[in-house]
Amino acid sequence: MFFHRQELQHKATPDKPDAVYARKLQEVLGGQYGEITVAMQYGFQSWNAHIPGKYRDLLFGIGAEEFGHVEMLATMIAQLLEKAPIGITEDAVQNDPTVAAVIGGTDLQHAIVAGAGARPVDSMGNPWSAGYITASGNLLADFTANANAEMQGRLQVARLYHMTDDSGVRDLLSFLLARDTMHQNQWMAAAAELREEGYEDFPVPSNFPIRKEERDVSYDYINFSNGEHASEGRWASGPTPDGKGEFSYRDASTETPVPMPPPTRPDSRLYGTTDLPNRVEKIAGAVQDALHKE
Amino acid sequence: MFFHRQELQHKATPDKPDAVYARKLQEVLGGQYGEITVAMQYGFQSWNAHIPGKYRDLLFGIGAEEFGHVEMLATMIAQLLEKAPIGITEDAVQNDPTVAAVIGGTDLQHAIVAGAGARPVDSMGNPWSAGYITASGNLLADFTANANAEMQGRLQVARLYHMTDDSGVRDLLSFLLARDTMHQNQWMAAAAELREEGYEDFPVPSNFPIRKEERDVSYDYINFSNGEHASEGRWASGPTPDGKGEFSYRDASTETPVPMPPPTRPDSRLYGTTDLPNRVEKIAGAVQDALHKE
Amino acid sequence: MFFHRQELQHKATPDKPDAVYARKLQEVLGGQYGEITVAMQYGFQSWNAHIPGKYRDLLFGIGAEEFGHVEMLATMIAQLLEKAPIGITEDAVQNDPTVAAVIGGTDLQHAIVAGAGARPVDSMGNPWSAGYITASGNLLADFTANANAEMQGRLQVARLYHMTDDSGVRDLLSFLLARDTMHQNQWMAAAAELREEGYEDFPVPSNFPIRKEERDVSYDYINFSNGEHASEGRWASGPTPDGKGEFSYRDASTETPVPMPPPTRPDSRLYGTTDLPNRVEKIAGAVQDALHKE
Amino acid sequence: MFFHRQELQHKATPDKPDAVYARKLQEVLGGQYGEITVAMQYGFQSWNAHIPGKYRDLLFGIGAEEFGHVEMLATMIAQLLEKAPIGITEDAVQNDPTVAAVIGGTDLQHAIVAGAGARPVDSMGNPWSAGYITASGNLLADFTANANAEMQGRLQVARLYHMTDDSGVRDLLSFLLARDTMHQNQWMAAAAELREEGYEDFPVPSNFPIRKEERDVSYDYINFSNGEHASEGRWASGPTPDGKGEFSYRDASTETPVPMPPPTRPDSRLYGTTDLPNRVEKIAGAVQDALHKE
Amino acid sequence: MFFHRQELQHKATPDKPDAVYARKLQEVLGGQYGEITVAMQYGFQSWNAHIPGKYRDLLFGIGAEEFGHVEMLATMIAQLLEKAPIGITEDAVQNDPTVAAVIGGTDLQHAIVAGAGARPVDSMGNPWSAGYITASGNLLADFTANANAEMQGRLQVARLYHMTDDSGVRDLLSFLLARDTMHQNQWMAAAAELREEGYEDFPVPSNFPIRKEERDVSYDYINFSNGEHASEGRWASGPTPDGKGEFSYRDASTETPVPMPPPTRPDSRLYGTTDLPNRVEKIAGAVQDALHKE
Amino acid sequence: MFFHRQELQHKATPDKPDAVYARKLQEVLGGQYGEITVAMQYGFQSWNAHIPGKYRDLLFGIGAEEFGHVEMLATMIAQLLEKAPIGITEDAVQNDPTVAAVIGGTDLQHAIVAGAGARPVDSMGNPWSAGYITASGNLLADFTANANAEMQGRLQVARLYHMTDDSGVRDLLSFLLARDTMHQNQWMAAAAELREEGYEDFPVPSNFPIRKEERDVSYDYINFSNGEHASEGRWASGPTPDGKGEFSYRDASTETPVPMPPPTRPDSRLYGTTDLPNRVEKIAGAVQDALHKE
Repeated sequence: MFFHRQELQHKATPDKPDAVYARKLQEVLGGQYGEITVAMQYGFQSWNAHIPGKYRDLLFGIGAEEFGHVEMLATMIAQLLEKAPIGITEDAVQNDPTVAAVIGGTDLQHAIVAGAGARPVDSMGNPWSAGYITASGNLLADFTANANAEMQGRLQVARLYHMTDDSGVRDLLSFLLARDTMHQNQWMAAAAELREEGYEDFPVPSNFPIRKEERDVSYDYINFSNGEHASEGRWASGPTPDGKGEFSYRDASTETPVPMPPPTRPDSRLYGTTDLPNRVEKIAGAVQDALHKE
Repeated sequence: MFFHRQELQHKATPDKPDAVYARKLQEVLGGQYGEITVAMQYGFQSWNAHIPGKYRDLLFGIGAEEFGHVEMLATMIAQLLEKAPIGITEDAVQNDPTVAAVIGGTDLQHAIVAGAGARPVDSMGNPWSAGYITASGNLLADFTANANAEMQGRLQVARLYHMTDDSGVRDLLSFLLARDTMHQNQWMAAAAELREEGYEDFPVPSNFPIRKEERDVSYDYINFSNGEHASEGRWASGPTPDGKGEFSYRDASTETPVPMPPPTRPDSRLYGTTDLPNRVEKIAGAVQDALHKE
Repeated sequence: MFFHRQELQHKATPDKPDAVYARKLQEVLGGQYGEITVAMQYGFQSWNAHIPGKYRDLLFGIGAEEFGHVEMLATMIAQLLEKAPIGITEDAVQNDPTVAAVIGGTDLQHAIVAGAGARPVDSMGNPWSAGYITASGNLLADFTANANAEMQGRLQVARLYHMTDDSGVRDLLSFLLARDTMHQNQWMAAAAELREEGYEDFPVPSNFPIRKEERDVSYDYINFSNGEHASEGRWASGPTPDGKGEFSYRDASTETPVPMPPPTRPDSRLYGTTDLPNRVEKIAGAVQDALHKE
Repeated sequence: MFFHRQELQHKATPDKPDAVYARKLQEVLGGQYGEITVAMQYGFQSWNAHIPGKYRDLLFGIGAEEFGHVEMLATMIAQLLEKAPIGITEDAVQNDPTVAAVIGGTDLQHAIVAGAGARPVDSMGNPWSAGYITASGNLLADFTANANAEMQGRLQVARLYHMTDDSGVRDLLSFLLARDTMHQNQWMAAAAELREEGYEDFPVPSNFPIRKEERDVSYDYINFSNGEHASEGRWASGPTPDGKGEFSYRDASTETPVPMPPPTRPDSRLYGTTDLPNRVEKIAGAVQDALHKE
Repeated sequence: MFFHRQELQHKATPDKPDAVYARKLQEVLGGQYGEITVAMQYGFQSWNAHIPGKYRDLLFGIGAEEFGHVEMLATMIAQLLEKAPIGITEDAVQNDPTVAAVIGGTDLQHAIVAGAGARPVDSMGNPWSAGYITASGNLLADFTANANAEMQGRLQVARLYHMTDDSGVRDLLSFLLARDTMHQNQWMAAAAELREEGYEDFPVPSNFPIRKEERDVSYDYINFSNGEHASEGRWASGPTPDGKGEFSYRDASTETPVPMPPPTRPDSRLYGTTDLPNRVEKIAGAVQDALHKE
Repeated sequence: MFFHRQELQHKATPDKPDAVYARKLQEVLGGQYGEITVAMQYGFQSWNAHIPGKYRDLLFGIGAEEFGHVEMLATMIAQLLEKAPIGITEDAVQNDPTVAAVIGGTDLQHAIVAGAGARPVDSMGNPWSAGYITASGNLLADFTANANAEMQGRLQVARLYHMTDDSGVRDLLSFLLARDTMHQNQWMAAAAELREEGYEDFPVPSNFPIRKEERDVSYDYINFSNGEHASEGRWASGPTPDGKGEFSYRDASTETPVPMPPPTRPDSRLYGTTDLPNRVEKIAGAVQDALHKE
């Protein structure tokens, strides 16, 4: 259950409106790695969790915070849009390129659809899609997904920080940066704890019967490109991070590939292009046509 | 540049056709974490890379292998569909529920659209979307995304392994499991190397001027749920994984929130619902209407 | 700000698992009119609201409840999936069509992607899209959208009620039906209050200067089909619901249409198909080619 | 059956081209509430209707008009694009920011993809999706959806009216505004008639056996936010619009919630993270691995 | 302008309901190459046409017919769904696998969302997207797109023909097959006429100044795969279909490729991973942090 | 299997960065007819092919080249973005409209999401979708789809050619134009060869038993619009391109349509709006409610 309070975790008011920047800020609200994504991702991970206790508590605790971040960003964007210009045309451009340039950079649906309100979209106007989120039931995989989401998110906020000098906006961004720092750290810590406590290990999923994997190629870097430095990293020799093998390196050209299987010949009533039989059948069909004429 | 050879890295032939399983296998071909995703993801990361040498070589080398995995799965699926049943109706069900049940579990577009061929979709028929991939230009973030993709991918292959007992299919899956093991290890190794060599560190992006982040809340777990075990993990106390702080824990109810900013009042020509002024304007408009009547 | 409590508003536990029904229930979780839609819709409407006070309070109050409904349904679905069958193939069908039929009716990503967890998708597997929600800033329009959403939602829950006889599931559905009854009533009441208090009226937006609308056709039913009963409803004669006109009816064949404007002739460098000038230019280009030969 | 006449219901010619405005106008052609949406929505509602006569005639009659509106807008947009500029680069910007500003505001696919033609997209370039339409078979719900669609549509046209001063464009918009006024009125009148004639009533669907709904909470406003004015509207006390109850109000904090059900424990072959049993199995697996070594 | 008549071009009534087949038929209503696609495609091509007269008349004439086909299929699907089963669960499966198998094969939204009505989706439930259509303004390209659409459409209808033995359904399909035969022929004839009349020619667009194309490689088959028969077709030697060259063949391994350009080094405030400078900057930043401590 | 070489087929370096043009170029990388589309389309067609030999070799050979084109465009775009401006706000616009105008024309995700890297999207920011590709198993249909794709692609490249005067960019485009010329020719040649060798013919699919098609209307142009020139093309009289009939022409108004089937009456538990029976049931339900009161 969620309870809402009409307050914000942090101040979210710009010094002044800026419709151009409002559009940019949409990325971290409704983009692939925006706040809607992490809120929903942690939500589904908690609802699908298979163990009670601290890991699920963690998911619930951060997830609910993120819903509040969605709200802070939406509130900020609405204020940035408060003086959003309307009414510009090519003619206006002739008279005032400055105004026109502003328009060129805005999200047109901010004005036409939302009446100067925030939208559940990214900076290019794509609606948020649940196809962005990850909740597999395997916590080590999912905590890695979460760490990545917080990294990508913090990276985008950092970039956005340099795209404005509005101190109100920067104040909010500096807060979000800090929270992303925290959450990156938390998911990494949680992943480490999962491994230490024996719940899961690398390679994920670690309790798949390893004898059913083709172990011959489990630690071989088979290089399919001609990069001459490819073998110089620690991913090409030495012990593997999962602690179960030694990396080796070879060029793909030394592989022993297998021939492609022959093409398939499905049911002729699917009318794919096949060779002889198909043509015979066609002739047969024509004959039948000539005979039956029904 | 890509060169194609009409051979496969590993045998990809089922013992016998199985249209129901063909649909399931689509998930790891065209799903969120299927082979198209990783092939395209590593491709865009390599094309957008900012440093020459081993990291980019690594991306190119694995990326090209993954395009070959796309091909192996597509080839396998086409063979699983070779005897795909067509022509089933409710009537047929009355006579043979077995056949009908098979149909119920197939991807109908396998027959109707592709004529018993593989499709660039997931197991529920959603077309693959480039919205799945990640290529940010920041390699530590992206290698974490890659590690996650390989974990989710291996997890799905492991689940699919138990959904068939066809030895040909299992043979291919055991190969893919091994390659996912390798790639998980490689991305973790590469992420570690990036940090060791000083290219990047946690929190990502590590060279954002840290004084611009609101450091007061960079290591606080502010719990917005009432899970009583939330503070028991290593994400709530002790040193943080980025090596720069100490976790602390507190309940969100102890926060000092700020009031919401007042609602915005955008241009009245956007016809949002506002209070008094709006109504005055409406009356004025009505008067004007009465006067002008043009 | 949202605070989470690890409790549910109502019991959400099935009598027994039922993976087939779990898929059906996804519709009211992640479909066009599912709980994610209303939660997000009321959220964005409240964040974009232009007046403080009771209307915004109403949006916040119901919106937060809906996030809790998302959680109840996700929890229910996870339990329905607890015994989700895995491992079925065409062969299995030969031996046990019953099991196969079950598989045919499940959401395959429930098993392969979510490991027997709920998904943010509808009953056909389409991921939830923010393109479903409405938040225009005009409250009379939006409350009508909300009333519609609650009607469509209650209709779907009613249909789902008859698709199971699990008393645990029905218990939850009977609760959701009641809440939808309430919310339908609330949005209708709120729309009425907006009109009474003079904030807005029909036609929306009511403060657009009416003299700028082509009033000649504001109340004419111009029928473009040949339905002989079309004029028998109260939409074809008598006073209009907005209280500002009288309906009239006429057949579209009596219209005085205007001719289509002539086709456009854009810049020839866009290589659209145009008539003569284009061909002349082509000849000129060929001549130039012959001459320059660079 | 549809018959086409090469005429328009109303003049649709701008005074002069304006590629920037052409993009804006796409919203009411191919957006969530554009003309394609209403044309297709009324079409599917009529084809799925369960009663012959005036209601279906109404759907057919308006639906066919909307297809003509799609055509008027597409024609208008093509003319607005007739002089669409091509060929602009950053260099051009240095010389003529005016021209550049124009480009910034255009839909780039208008030139690159359509060669100065209209596109089936919204103002941000999202392709029209059938996920926008509603056709449930329940006419009271659907007529409410239609009323909402006409409100949102008229609101957007009104906003667009102020974004141009081209008298040709405004002439068309004033016509569309009038038709939206009419259609808003018609769907409200039709909804009222449905109720009067006893076909359907609130809450939709009205013939769901009401004893199966949990009537205890059918008229309670349970407020999950802390808005102090929430109870001041007519949605919190007094008779309900469906005529079947009395609104009551209470704060959600007074609810008696139920505990969350325990986490699920699905089949271990899905490799979700579970507690002890999982770890035991892992050890067993390792032992087996050591023994079999096949 | 479109006028609707409540009649159908051809009978569209099944012998009996068949909810399983209804889902399959959705493919040619709302799929990539379904009737909605061709209706909208021809519509946009006509509205964007740059020459008046017979070509545009052709587009209008066929386009309007296709809207009628949308209607026929929607009507047919609604009838196929008339007895759609509801209420099935895993328990029911135990008692009657036949019924369960039927359910497994249906579009669940037919019942839950549309109340036994047609939907604007394909056979796997993906909503129709305007991203399917093509309207470039170049008629030779577009007529080729149209010919392809009619081929893919007729192919799908032919496949569907064999998936039912309902004589009513087959009667409609035999009609649609004939119309697709006609339309395939018409678009090919129209493409030929465009070329004969000198409007356009191959390669499209034919009036692009050919000296600006790198003619050295305009007719070379550079084979990037190792298929040994690749050069045996008429695409590898002899005159080219555009009448302007001679095909030649060579293996890609004989190409003289160019080196990749060096990696880019964008603005450091985008926090991409770069080499030395980046690390220097990081140190500088740390120093600055230490000094300023603000 | 794919092997990668770190070289390009052709030089892909601009004279200087141009972030505005980078966005435009995305269309032919990630748009409906961009290089990702053709690469994936030819890939799936080859994997689904039913005959070994030259046709499949052709698909493999061109497909692999197209993956290399994806790489060339991505590399070019990254370089065009190398100096992408960041940091612009409305204030900046006041001072320098030139810079602002540039921003207005950029893909914002290039900076925020990709850190000045290429993206798998079109020029309006829509992510590439596998819904764009075609692979039916019928080679004559698919080669026609391929010819269309190359036409649309070359048309877009030709348009883009005029939108820049950067000689490096134009050099690459002139190369791509030549390759599109080649591929257009190849697919037309391949389609012709398929027909000559008797694999397939018009109408596609040619081996569908023609007696099952309603031959009465296979060659009739039934005109549903009132274009007076519609019958003047070779699509309205004379022999048909498939060599099997004679075109005839007639106006749709002379058709003998059939009446619409009566509306459907599905299961009342779907709560659609029906006439009398429904109301009777409602009364019955109310009575039952009154009696049972459970």
